Amino acid sequence: MKSLLLIAALGCGLCWGQAPADCKPSALNIPEAKYPCVYPDNRAMFRVVAPDAQKVTVHIGRGFDMTKGADGIWTATTTPLVVGFHYYSLQIDGATVADPSTMTFFGSGWQNSGIEIPESADAEYYHAKDVPHGHVSEQWYLSKITGKWRRCFVYTPPDYETNAKAKFPVLYLLHGWGEDETGWYTQGHVDFIMDNLIAAKKAKPMIIVMDNLNAVKPGESAALFAARGLVPAPGAAPAPQGAAGAQPGRGAGPGGRGMGGFDLSAFTDMMFTDLIPVVERTFRALPGRENRAMAGLSMGGMQTFTTALNNLDKFAYLGGFSGSCGGRGGTFDPKTTCGGAFADPAGFNKKVKVLFLGIGSAEGQGTKGFSDALTQAGIHNVYFESPDTAHEWLTWRRCLNDFAPRLFR
Amino acid sequence: MKSLLLIAALGCGLCWGQAPADCKPSALNIPEAKYPCVYPDNRAMFRVVAPDAQKVTVHIGRGFDMTKGADGIWTATTTPLVVGFHYYSLQIDGATVADPSTMTFFGSGWQNSGIEIPESADAEYYHAKDVPHGHVSEQWYLSKITGKWRRCFVYTPPDYETNAKAKFPVLYLLHGWGEDETGWYTQGHVDFIMDNLIAAKKAKPMIIVMDNLNAVKPGESAALFAARGLVPAPGAAPAPQGAAGAQPGRGAGPGGRGMGGFDLSAFTDMMFTDLIPVVERTFRALPGRENRAMAGLSMGGMQTFTTALNNLDKFAYLGGFSGSCGGRGGTFDPKTTCGGAFADPAGFNKKVKVLFLGIGSAEGQGTKGFSDALTQAGIHNVYFESPDTAHEWLTWRRCLNDFAPRLFR
Repeated sequence: MKSLLLIAALGCGLCWGQAPADCKPSALNIPEAKYPCVYPDNRAMFRVVAPDAQKVTVHIGRGFDMTKGADGIWTATTTPLVVGFHYYSLQIDGATVADPSTMTFFGSGWQNSGIEIPESADAEYYHAKDVPHGHVSEQWYLSKITGKWRRCFVYTPPDYETNAKAKFPVLYLLHGWGEDETGWYTQGHVDFIMDNLIAAKKAKPMIIVMDNLNAVKPGESAALFAARGLVPAPGAAPAPQGAAGAQPGRGAGPGGRGMGGFDLSAFTDMMFTDLIPVVERTFRALPGRENRAMAGLSMGGMQTFTTALNNLDKFAYLGGFSGSCGGRGGTFDPKTTCGGAFADPAGFNKKVKVLFLGIGSAEGQGTKGFSDALTQAGIHNVYFESPDTAHEWLTWRRCLNDFAPRLFR
Repeated sequence: MKSLLLIAALGCGLCWGQAPADCKPSALNIPEAKYPCVYPDNRAMFRVVAPDAQKVTVHIGRGFDMTKGADGIWTATTTPLVVGFHYYSLQIDGATVADPSTMTFFGSGWQNSGIEIPESADAEYYHAKDVPHGHVSEQWYLSKITGKWRRCFVYTPPDYETNAKAKFPVLYLLHGWGEDETGWYTQGHVDFIMDNLIAAKKAKPMIIVMDNLNAVKPGESAALFAARGLVPAPGAAPAPQGAAGAQPGRGAGPGGRGMGGFDLSAFTDMMFTDLIPVVERTFRALPGRENRAMAGLSMGGMQTFTTALNNLDKFAYLGGFSGSCGGRGGTFDPKTTCGGAFADPAGFNKKVKVLFLGIGSAEGQGTKGFSDALTQAGIHNVYFESPDTAHEWLTWRRCLNDFAPRLFR
């Protein structure tokens, strides 16, 4: 009787494969996996089979030490987590690894685990609905700039198939530090967001090109590649120590010509020499600056502003989601900030149809300050703040959902 | 001097991030990762950072215990491995996890690590070359049979874009047990194989649909889903114990109507009710049995024969790669084997334009025996044997490379 009570007191968290009734499996788990699961108050419960380990920790923003229970199963329940997509990792006796219970997601330079803390009512916009669906397709091309084969993913809207002669404007959309070309369609749900916006006639049908912002010219070293890494996203799982080059660094490499001292020129060169030509040759893309937009998140936002502000003859729409050329302190001076791109407000406003700055409310006031300074200097811009989210994919899904309807009007 | 000699004797395997000069990083590593690496004689060296672990083992077909060196880094060098793609996993103090140094691949029901032991000269056929490239695109659809959103990947040939009015025949191509719809384009390189065959005019341009063979009707239990798992591929990394339902089982679930006692009917129903209609509605697919082929590997081969042999009004081409309705022992009797599908050789040969049976030479003689028995019974069939390969993706890449040129002639 006593042992029965003890088992009851321990709760079902220790039962084999049986999660507590109010703890729902994360949408990112492998098929049939019950853990990690999420409680109604957004606490998450993790479970790891590691019978001979001495110490197991789950790292999700911060570390939560796990407790070893019956059968060598370790569990931990977090404090309530912010809604949205989070990378996380396990540390098992000093080894940083992904949780084998989830699908994996490329972030911080390796295949992390992921967990989704569901949004409430307004989350419909990034889920599959019974509307016409576009396609995300893989496009390989040989880059003259890097000398290597590269891959991008391309979203084509539902109309692309049904209207075989129509041409479409193009948004070039970039991921952040440590991520790759899979980010926007896997973590970002770009396809469902666009399908839903287009079905509701909120956004114009468009092609979206999602490339890999890492571009290294022959002779550039991997160290330079690593140095481009900037600072990893807050809350991102650390790269495992075994991965050479995945450690973020600081400082400009040789030949750095980009803003902020980082060499972002290789991607810009690659984009104009390789990517845009292959897209416009392969897909039914409308040509010209008024049919081209560029946006990116975090480091991809920085890349966007570096590339596009210096090439406004090629782009009429710009978006920075939690990343741009400003908002990181310092005094705003239209003559010098962002390489002097805002020195002529009237000229700028004539050329740039949308300048979009998005941020999560938990990310601080820097981007708001940058937007205000731009407005004060007479530069038209859109400021979008995602409520209650941090430097992560839910902020960026919401940014895209707000940004895309403004394009190609 | 002595310690210097000792360091020299230990070799560079223990140096931080510096692989021995003749050990080349696997093509499947995360960017910049030097390990695992492959020696010219096909031994592989693995390296794991796990400073506080007591025991670390790498499982690749069999287990290799790793040795702890300086800085808590564990290493192991295998015996020579068979060429091709191999899933593998690590065991760290009893926890089965993926190696954080590689990209991950869905097999055995979870995201394993992978390593590629390169083929020699003839491997060109599955690599990116400077030829026109088709697309692999993601297609979502809501299934009436399962009541859930499903995803398939669709290869469209280069001509699909350039010739906007042309229609194409369709090959439905399935993965194996524990894998998913990503297998053929990630592990299998279906896109490069087809691009190269089409550029060389060896294969006709075709659409290839890669779906997920797991289909569960509402009310069917996850246990049934697991019971469909058959036997995992030899050499496949075991599923982590934490993943409920990922354990393979045996035996037929309730309502099982498929060959061999397994219920393969849900996928067949789903294919005819949902998949084929959505493909023929969305893509420029040629209709009719002579424009439809079906093939699959391992359990996907078994599914192919179950589905297609019972529906020869819908398919004219069949392929089983290391899996079909025969070849697993027992006496061949045209009246009863494979549900009596071969009882009328003349009728069968008139309907089925290609019946293809592929196998790796290391997989035994069962498939050869089945092919010989079919031939003796008067059933035309093609037997293809991949030299020196086992039950893994290199066998199946070679099967596709041999099978695709035979289609739609």
